[in-house]
Amino acid sequence: MFLHRKETIMPVSVGTPDARFGQLLLEQFGGATGELTAALQYWVQSFHVTDAGIRDMLQDIAIEEFSHLEMVGKLIAQHTSKFDQQDVYDAPLFALKGVGPHLVDSCGSAWTASYINEGGNVVRDLRANIAAEGGARQTYESLMKHCEDQPTKKVLHHLLTREITHAQMFMKALGAMGKLDDPLFGTVAPDDTVNIVFNLSQGEDHRGPWNKKPFQYVTDPQPKGGFPPAPVNPDDEPAGSLAEAAA
Amino acid sequence: MFLHRKETIMPVSVGTPDARFGQLLLEQFGGATGELTAALQYWVQSFHVTDAGIRDMLQDIAIEEFSHLEMVGKLIAQHTSKFDQQDVYDAPLFALKGVGPHLVDSCGSAWTASYINEGGNVVRDLRANIAAEGGARQTYESLMKHCEDQPTKKVLHHLLTREITHAQMFMKALGAMGKLDDPLFGTVAPDDTVNIVFNLSQGEDHRGPWNKKPFQYVTDPQPKGGFPPAPVNPDDEPAGSLAEAAA
Amino acid sequence: MFLHRKETIMPVSVGTPDARFGQLLLEQFGGATGELTAALQYWVQSFHVTDAGIRDMLQDIAIEEFSHLEMVGKLIAQHTSKFDQQDVYDAPLFALKGVGPHLVDSCGSAWTASYINEGGNVVRDLRANIAAEGGARQTYESLMKHCEDQPTKKVLHHLLTREITHAQMFMKALGAMGKLDDPLFGTVAPDDTVNIVFNLSQGEDHRGPWNKKPFQYVTDPQPKGGFPPAPVNPDDEPAGSLAEAAA
Amino acid sequence: MFLHRKETIMPVSVGTPDARFGQLLLEQFGGATGELTAALQYWVQSFHVTDAGIRDMLQDIAIEEFSHLEMVGKLIAQHTSKFDQQDVYDAPLFALKGVGPHLVDSCGSAWTASYINEGGNVVRDLRANIAAEGGARQTYESLMKHCEDQPTKKVLHHLLTREITHAQMFMKALGAMGKLDDPLFGTVAPDDTVNIVFNLSQGEDHRGPWNKKPFQYVTDPQPKGGFPPAPVNPDDEPAGSLAEAAA
Amino acid sequence: MFLHRKETIMPVSVGTPDARFGQLLLEQFGGATGELTAALQYWVQSFHVTDAGIRDMLQDIAIEEFSHLEMVGKLIAQHTSKFDQQDVYDAPLFALKGVGPHLVDSCGSAWTASYINEGGNVVRDLRANIAAEGGARQTYESLMKHCEDQPTKKVLHHLLTREITHAQMFMKALGAMGKLDDPLFGTVAPDDTVNIVFNLSQGEDHRGPWNKKPFQYVTDPQPKGGFPPAPVNPDDEPAGSLAEAAA
Amino acid sequence: MFLHRKETIMPVSVGTPDARFGQLLLEQFGGATGELTAALQYWVQSFHVTDAGIRDMLQDIAIEEFSHLEMVGKLIAQHTSKFDQQDVYDAPLFALKGVGPHLVDSCGSAWTASYINEGGNVVRDLRANIAAEGGARQTYESLMKHCEDQPTKKVLHHLLTREITHAQMFMKALGAMGKLDDPLFGTVAPDDTVNIVFNLSQGEDHRGPWNKKPFQYVTDPQPKGGFPPAPVNPDDEPAGSLAEAAA
Repeated sequence: MFLHRKETIMPVSVGTPDARFGQLLLEQFGGATGELTAALQYWVQSFHVTDAGIRDMLQDIAIEEFSHLEMVGKLIAQHTSKFDQQDVYDAPLFALKGVGPHLVDSCGSAWTASYINEGGNVVRDLRANIAAEGGARQTYESLMKHCEDQPTKKVLHHLLTREITHAQMFMKALGAMGKLDDPLFGTVAPDDTVNIVFNLSQGEDHRGPWNKKPFQYVTDPQPKGGFPPAPVNPDDEPAGSLAEAAA
Repeated sequence: MFLHRKETIMPVSVGTPDARFGQLLLEQFGGATGELTAALQYWVQSFHVTDAGIRDMLQDIAIEEFSHLEMVGKLIAQHTSKFDQQDVYDAPLFALKGVGPHLVDSCGSAWTASYINEGGNVVRDLRANIAAEGGARQTYESLMKHCEDQPTKKVLHHLLTREITHAQMFMKALGAMGKLDDPLFGTVAPDDTVNIVFNLSQGEDHRGPWNKKPFQYVTDPQPKGGFPPAPVNPDDEPAGSLAEAAA
Repeated sequence: MFLHRKETIMPVSVGTPDARFGQLLLEQFGGATGELTAALQYWVQSFHVTDAGIRDMLQDIAIEEFSHLEMVGKLIAQHTSKFDQQDVYDAPLFALKGVGPHLVDSCGSAWTASYINEGGNVVRDLRANIAAEGGARQTYESLMKHCEDQPTKKVLHHLLTREITHAQMFMKALGAMGKLDDPLFGTVAPDDTVNIVFNLSQGEDHRGPWNKKPFQYVTDPQPKGGFPPAPVNPDDEPAGSLAEAAA
Repeated sequence: MFLHRKETIMPVSVGTPDARFGQLLLEQFGGATGELTAALQYWVQSFHVTDAGIRDMLQDIAIEEFSHLEMVGKLIAQHTSKFDQQDVYDAPLFALKGVGPHLVDSCGSAWTASYINEGGNVVRDLRANIAAEGGARQTYESLMKHCEDQPTKKVLHHLLTREITHAQMFMKALGAMGKLDDPLFGTVAPDDTVNIVFNLSQGEDHRGPWNKKPFQYVTDPQPKGGFPPAPVNPDDEPAGSLAEAAA
Repeated sequence: MFLHRKETIMPVSVGTPDARFGQLLLEQFGGATGELTAALQYWVQSFHVTDAGIRDMLQDIAIEEFSHLEMVGKLIAQHTSKFDQQDVYDAPLFALKGVGPHLVDSCGSAWTASYINEGGNVVRDLRANIAAEGGARQTYESLMKHCEDQPTKKVLHHLLTREITHAQMFMKALGAMGKLDDPLFGTVAPDDTVNIVFNLSQGEDHRGPWNKKPFQYVTDPQPKGGFPPAPVNPDDEPAGSLAEAAA
Repeated sequence: MFLHRKETIMPVSVGTPDARFGQLLLEQFGGATGELTAALQYWVQSFHVTDAGIRDMLQDIAIEEFSHLEMVGKLIAQHTSKFDQQDVYDAPLFALKGVGPHLVDSCGSAWTASYINEGGNVVRDLRANIAAEGGARQTYESLMKHCEDQPTKKVLHHLLTREITHAQMFMKALGAMGKLDDPLFGTVAPDDTVNIVFNLSQGEDHRGPWNKKPFQYVTDPQPKGGFPPAPVNPDDEPAGSLAEAAA
């Protein structure tokens, strides 16, 4: 059961409203790397993750992300609170949809659950979460770099920080399972090609820890599969030797 | 510059075609966790990643994923090669769109680049890639579990294995940067809330490495932000005390 | 700031798990008329609605909808808890994505913020909300009709009931503004065509309160606009009289 | 069967073409609140609504909305008819896709049927239509506010007016069924929680007609559901007490 | 200006309703190759095509396609008119969304304007239309193959026929411009690589009219571009020789 | 099996980086008419096309299109390589997502497989490909028109040229089947309405090769279908004569 307090986690009070910057902020409200993605991803995972401790962690963080979404929304509302005729073509999204946040990204694309990565296995879920935190952190850094309003920047700094906190928590959880540096999980053991590495993009090749021992590096990989059976298309025209016939 | 050899990496030759299973296989051709997502994600990253070695690795793996996409496509083509009237309502997607693979998932949803996670920073990219490999591996395990055709299962086993290989490679690269178990990256240092953990979902609480020391656990978090300014909506009706007035 | 209690609003305890019915339930988790749509629509509105009372109402209801989303998710998790090989082709979505809820509808389409209707004016918002409640109620009725598990049905009955409650609340709020039966709102008065009704679909015509007085019914409407200027396409080929020339 | 007359309902003749404003106008051609949404929503409803009079009304209005879509399209074609090099970055959408209307909104997002709300019950449909009219009217007001071309503004004024007319018609139809101010519809009676209202968002609480009598206001709602069964995930790792073990 | 007659172009009267087949029929109502795609594509083109004759043709055909959409909708409405409990899991889409047509395809994916291909040049538009007709025709053939109801099949046969008629019309128009067998159009002449053909997919190579004279066939193409400058990413970490360093 | 050489087909070396132009270029990287659409469309077709020669052609061209995608990506990477604070609101997409290409179009909409047209029949596929080439060529012309950097323009000229080459190849292949100017294909013969042409959009009518002989032109088409059965909606309210009753 959800509950809500109208006060925010930390103060949100924009100094100088700037509708253009408000449009950029939408990236973290209704964008791919935004707070809604994080909140819903972790929360949906909590329905199938069976480890009680990790489930609790997922829910704790999900609820915090909802509260962050609220803070980003408050920033956008304040940045668009002086919207006027001069802003029409600088921040057109608010000219037509109205001021305040909407569930679209900074380009006006509607948020989609296709951004979410989860399902079936807790290791997969936690790895997806570290990735999500990385994306969110990166966008906050971009926003901070382009932000000229100090009170806004302070909120963004806090939100960026929390992504690091959450990444750390997910790493700790994966580490406790021994899955932070072990790619294996699930119930299927790999076959005997697991240590082979192929040099498939040739030119300016480099070697590093990802293709040296224990990996076996194949410098000039060749197909081993032969030609699979030609397609049989019961819907298609009777075919055969059109090319030759036409020639 | 891309090149192509019509032979496949390993043999792809289905034993008993089953259009229903072919529809499930679409999940790895045109689905969120499928080979197209992986191929394009790594390849797009290669355009902005500046470390020459990691860029080479991303391209090597991307090209392999394209080759895997081809193998999944061949499996689907063969599984639908005997499609007939009896399959119409069991695998309706092929009844209308024709046999062979299409760029949709097993539910018929078109592939979208919203599945892709990349941009701005190599650490973020590599974390996204470990997550992508986790999702792909998980779906292959699900497919293997429901697969009754041994030659198909062997191909799936190889494809699952390679996801582990790639995850291992990405981990090695992250490890070489010291970023496998360190959440920090980029140019912004966290603020002083980085070690705080909030118990926001209450009941059945658990403690673990993710909310014990060095984390500072706040059992009953309270808002510190006060009430942000009420919204000002230049587009809205003059408002005020409707509730009280109406009452 | 959001808070969460792990207990649910009312008991959620499925009698006989049925993965197929679980797939139908997704319609109210990640579907157009589902709880996520309602929760986010009302909550996003609360950022720009300036009337303090209505804003409070929107937030109260939004939080309840999040709690309902949780209950639907719990139902799905329980209905898929016995998922086995026999369910693979009956509820394929869980076979590949894993058990428990996902943010897709019963056909596997990802939730999108395009479902949401809000912005710019509180009257518009409240009308959108009555519509949203109508859609949600309708889907719950459909689910109840096809539900064979009594404990599930009892939860669905409660959820359906609450949509009625919320619709009633939105109606009361609109009524307090005098906008329940008055189409006018905003700052632009209609022009003098406001009472004209056109009979544009001819045959089997009917008259009713919607096209009788005060409406003025035009039985055989004619265009009054003449031919607008022909298109000028600076990108196109020089054109002119192709048809005549070719003839 | 559809028919078409090339003349428009009322004159459409732009005074001073402005490609930037043309891009804003796309919101009502291929956007969420635009004429295509309205036209298709009402028309699709007409296939399942069984009341002959309301079906006729839906078709009459749908056909008018198609004619409005045409007028908006003509406005866009004329506003982009002088498109030149100076407009490239002011109205980039036309620089690449060509002049004239396209089925995208002002941000370039493709129109999607996810905007449509309909199905299963005529009361639900009519409520959805009042909401659709509200959204369309709101966007027209925004466009008028930013429009500097009088002939364009006159067309927009007419289109705004017609949304009010249609809203009025839908209200009359709902009123004739007694469903304008009665939330109940369909075949399922509500359970006994129908008059309870929860104060779930706390702080700055307000009372109004929506949470006073006949509603029963619960100021501090508590979960009554207990803890539902923990998830059982047949796909997941054997779990248990990771947190405690790790600790 | 649009007009509508409630009678259909030809009789639509299903013999034996079959909700499952109704779900397949959605492919031509709200699917990629369906009548809505055709109707809107041709109609949108008519706003920018400057040749008066071709514009008239586009509008004539667009209006017919709207009428076809109506006929497909009527078929779906009739095929779902006996929907009952037994159909719930055979045609689940109607169980939840209600009977009759909806703007989704047979898999439940919402129609999107991304299906539409148009803009900027009449030759491009007409080629897109021939392609659209080909797709529609192909889906009608698939539907006819799986259709057991003769009256339905007769309507489908007519609709398939009309796609051929339209394709013929578009071919005649292109032919009148000399663009049916000439790939050139627009204002930019090709460079001197226009006749080169590359053998980039090697193995099982074939020759035909598409890679014989006047084409110049390159059997083993080599890159001529050298290595473009390495990426410079102002957002990325200072990089350089990670691989070598780590090694 | 795919292979890759890091050198490009022809030199890609931007003279003066311009992030704004880079954003326009995204249209051919992640947009509807872009290289990814072409590459994947032809390649997916190759899985079901049974004629060996045409299959080989499809694969040859698909691989070239992947190489073109690479060249467009390199252009974008170079055009954004000097991205700085001044570019933030001119090319906002790169400010938030990072420099270099992303799989979105110039408006930031994610690439979707809904752009792809293929399936079931080789004639349909080839027609779709000629259409795809037309769209791609058109966008390249638009980009060239707005391009101020000569080295960039030279690459765009080559890419435009190759679309003509491919269109020519597809035309040759269709011609070899006799399907370039014959609308018929597949296994269903048209019914006897195939030569009728309807004048459904009235006013400013024109005649041309597309509606003269052998076509039979119907100047004032009338519905021949009568009124199909009124809808029966088992989900709807008992209906009947609401309009009359209410009157």
